[in-house]
Amino acid sequence: MSKEKIYIFDTTLRDGAQTQGVDFSIDDKEKIAKSLDSLGVDYIEGGWPGANPTDTEFFNKDPNFKNSNLTAFGMTKKSEHSAENDPMLSSLINSKSKSICLFGKSWDFHVDVALNISNEQNLENIRESTKHVVKSGKEFMFDAEHFFDGYKSNPDYAISCLKAAFDNGARWVILCDTNGGTLPHEVSKIVNEVIKHVPGKNLGIHAHNDTENAVANSLAAVQAGVRQVQGTINGLGERCGNANLMSLIPTFYLKKDFSENFEINIKRENIKNLTQCSRLLDEILNRKPNRHLPYVGASAFSHKGGMHVSAVQKDPKTYEHINPEEVGNSRNIVVSDQSGQSNIISRLNSIGIDIKKNDPKIKKLLDEVKDREFIGYSYDGADASFELLARRLMGDIPRYISVNEYDVSVKKDNSGEIVSFAKAQLEVDGKKILCEGKGNGPVNALDNAIRQNVNKLAKYSEYLKDLKLVDYKVRILNTGTEAVTRVSIESTDSNGKNWFTIGVSPNIIEASFKALVDSLDYKLYKDNAPAST
Amino acid sequence: MSKEKIYIFDTTLRDGAQTQGVDFSIDDKEKIAKSLDSLGVDYIEGGWPGANPTDTEFFNKDPNFKNSNLTAFGMTKKSEHSAENDPMLSSLINSKSKSICLFGKSWDFHVDVALNISNEQNLENIRESTKHVVKSGKEFMFDAEHFFDGYKSNPDYAISCLKAAFDNGARWVILCDTNGGTLPHEVSKIVNEVIKHVPGKNLGIHAHNDTENAVANSLAAVQAGVRQVQGTINGLGERCGNANLMSLIPTFYLKKDFSENFEINIKRENIKNLTQCSRLLDEILNRKPNRHLPYVGASAFSHKGGMHVSAVQKDPKTYEHINPEEVGNSRNIVVSDQSGQSNIISRLNSIGIDIKKNDPKIKKLLDEVKDREFIGYSYDGADASFELLARRLMGDIPRYISVNEYDVSVKKDNSGEIVSFAKAQLEVDGKKILCEGKGNGPVNALDNAIRQNVNKLAKYSEYLKDLKLVDYKVRILNTGTEAVTRVSIESTDSNGKNWFTIGVSPNIIEASFKALVDSLDYKLYKDNAPAST
Repeated sequence: MSKEKIYIFDTTLRDGAQTQGVDFSIDDKEKIAKSLDSLGVDYIEGGWPGANPTDTEFFNKDPNFKNSNLTAFGMTKKSEHSAENDPMLSSLINSKSKSICLFGKSWDFHVDVALNISNEQNLENIRESTKHVVKSGKEFMFDAEHFFDGYKSNPDYAISCLKAAFDNGARWVILCDTNGGTLPHEVSKIVNEVIKHVPGKNLGIHAHNDTENAVANSLAAVQAGVRQVQGTINGLGERCGNANLMSLIPTFYLKKDFSENFEINIKRENIKNLTQCSRLLDEILNRKPNRHLPYVGASAFSHKGGMHVSAVQKDPKTYEHINPEEVGNSRNIVVSDQSGQSNIISRLNSIGIDIKKNDPKIKKLLDEVKDREFIGYSYDGADASFELLARRLMGDIPRYISVNEYDVSVKKDNSGEIVSFAKAQLEVDGKKILCEGKGNGPVNALDNAIRQNVNKLAKYSEYLKDLKLVDYKVRILNTGTEAVTRVSIESTDSNGKNWFTIGVSPNIIEASFKALVDSLDYKLYKDNAPAST
Repeated sequence: MSKEKIYIFDTTLRDGAQTQGVDFSIDDKEKIAKSLDSLGVDYIEGGWPGANPTDTEFFNKDPNFKNSNLTAFGMTKKSEHSAENDPMLSSLINSKSKSICLFGKSWDFHVDVALNISNEQNLENIRESTKHVVKSGKEFMFDAEHFFDGYKSNPDYAISCLKAAFDNGARWVILCDTNGGTLPHEVSKIVNEVIKHVPGKNLGIHAHNDTENAVANSLAAVQAGVRQVQGTINGLGERCGNANLMSLIPTFYLKKDFSENFEINIKRENIKNLTQCSRLLDEILNRKPNRHLPYVGASAFSHKGGMHVSAVQKDPKTYEHINPEEVGNSRNIVVSDQSGQSNIISRLNSIGIDIKKNDPKIKKLLDEVKDREFIGYSYDGADASFELLARRLMGDIPRYISVNEYDVSVKKDNSGEIVSFAKAQLEVDGKKILCEGKGNGPVNALDNAIRQNVNKLAKYSEYLKDLKLVDYKVRILNTGTEAVTRVSIESTDSNGKNWFTIGVSPNIIEASFKALVDSLDYKLYKDNAPAST
């Protein structure tokens, strides 16, 4: 029997951006969109061009997606304009989107109270907006805002709103539970009625998590016939969030009743990237990832209780509903030292260090990693710093550039001018080298002092000429009794392969400096620079 | 028609305590139990007496609950003992519990792989343990571990495990989805079969959130006939957590299909304490509360989009599925890049600024907010900085302390010692004041220079004495062409109400300084300090 297709629609960049505390820059949006496109979701809703400068700029560039359809969001025309003369519709049609999703009312109460127009005027706005977008040649979808509340209040009117879009050429009609108050059994019941009027293959579901049922409501809708599912990475979204695609996608793939009957366009091998996709969003938002997220959270496959651990060691299926590797996650035995060692071994192998299972260096490295993670290091995302730590312990890394001292200052005078200045005394082959630099902040000044003076660094000059910092991140952590600063640096060079280093200290300058020195050392090591004599 | 009763069973102190990173003290346990008892849950599972010293001690004292039944957790007897001679069972029976909940296997795979005994031996252990506890006079319940996986693997055997307990006097038989992999439609289907063997009024559901369906699975079980629901505060629990009672309880009370057919023993007026109960747990765990929790999260009734805000002002029902006051929560209008004039007006009103809809200052403030958000400010979490911005524009904020200049330095010498030092020249009533300070980093030194010298600040000394920084956060943003730093500071004073300020600059010192000065200014303004002359 052929499987039915479920289409995945991501709205992290639109509904997710409406979350309290979330404020994406263009750069953030581009990174997230790139990650979603390589995952392979069908639609990426990028925002509302024309509504704010960031979204307008985002839609000015063609993103050249490999897999996804860029979708612009907006609303059906206002009553006072014709569709042709609605400036908001024009800016959507002129944007670089392939699809357009317009929301409109389907709850008579809203038509009256929020819009203050007649039910017929609202239907007219939906019809005319639909026709206008369809004529432009872009794929059109209609977000029926508050559909479930509307259906409960006035089913005939709610359905007539859907039909106003569908009968005029909408590819998709989306049933939105805008206020998030609908329960799964209501979704099942209402969708069973709706599919008598609009075919399931043209229906979508947009659920919110206000009763903690966004995922269940989405599943119930699919089981009742709906074929497009909207959601966000990690369930980001207004109030309590949207349906979490990081939970829905693996459920579609890995749970029997769904995998036997349905298929999605995301490739099986890409499911392994879900954990990474989830962490990327938190990194961009500079948030501590929620360890307890289903499927992708760091604790999702953690075993703490003694009886659980011993059973999992006999057979992981005893306390795991799926194999964590399927979604790019990993098992985490909280109490067992041994599992720690096997993690370390597998990580050392992956960077080309071949080590025997009973080599005492493994225990030493594990202890060092544990001690450092206790004070705030996190080697999860800092591959280069981990490799340096391991290789220093193995004696593989010679001394390159030594830094004897530095002095960084920031002065603001009473004219309001701010000057950041740094000097550092380095040493190569026994020769002392004084480097000075200015910058727009203390860390930038210190970085400039070293990297803008690579010509002074004798035999290392050539190696460091093409080193560039790509990203710099700061997080304040409360570990134990005092706050420490963790700095992460992403670097690149002309080979185009980026590396990540980390530094931790109560002092932000020192933390930055450590991450910077690791970046230099890693570059010198990987390019086989000679040791300092 | 009379309503059927649903019993609420809380396992925060038992299953919640198995969460990675959770380690309750006796004192913590007592506080949480007290809060649950005054809420009025039917059962409080306090832990496993005999398994660890904390739980043993907790069960040594009679808690004198007003509403709840203290329940002790343990496992069915081991094959090598009779029930009478099982020391674990004795310690449960001798504890100060009113009810005893024993878990046992109901999945044949587990009986074989984890216990390594025969199916019949396992049934015998359930039967004998049940009889023994029932004879002791305590209420008995049986947790059928892995029941849903067991039913899928061998339905007859899984049912016979339930019957072994029920037929021998168990008041409750709990269907546990221990690995959390079961979906709502499966729960409905399986419970519909189970109630042919054990009446629904004797069945409970214990769901885990590994597919993000713990709440939906609990609701599905109730709709299929189950009458006891187990869960935890905020969904705390192993891996991805347990069913969240903070979502289930209000759903039972406030959602029509449940409230019309069911009742719970928690009093209606106590539902207002749910938000407080949720926050208490985070306070005990020293965690930042999840703002996005359904019903009780700080963002659960936040409105950010301009159109949402204007509709909520006409009628909150437009974008709220329940009245937030029902659960002790409150509405929150967010100001941001995305907001319109109505957000600004309503936020101004909420801080006591009465302004007319067409006052040109509104447009000016909105433009100022949008411009500042474009360069990296984000007012949606920085209430105090927003209020200062608005009141400065209205001319309400006088000049207090002026800062003419500052000078901050960080030096590391070749012994490795790092010293951070700051001086700032302030001015009050035309008098210059030099403040100096050291710290474990440059920002801390600057903060110390000012706040540890409040005694020098003439007439402002008294006002600033009790000011404390609670939290300090840094984010590097890429907005437009250069990276800027955004610093957020949370402050408090002896009144106990915290305020949030923000500073943005390419220079981290300057950004921190701006946020710090806003915090001082806000404190002086709210305490009615006089202007500097």
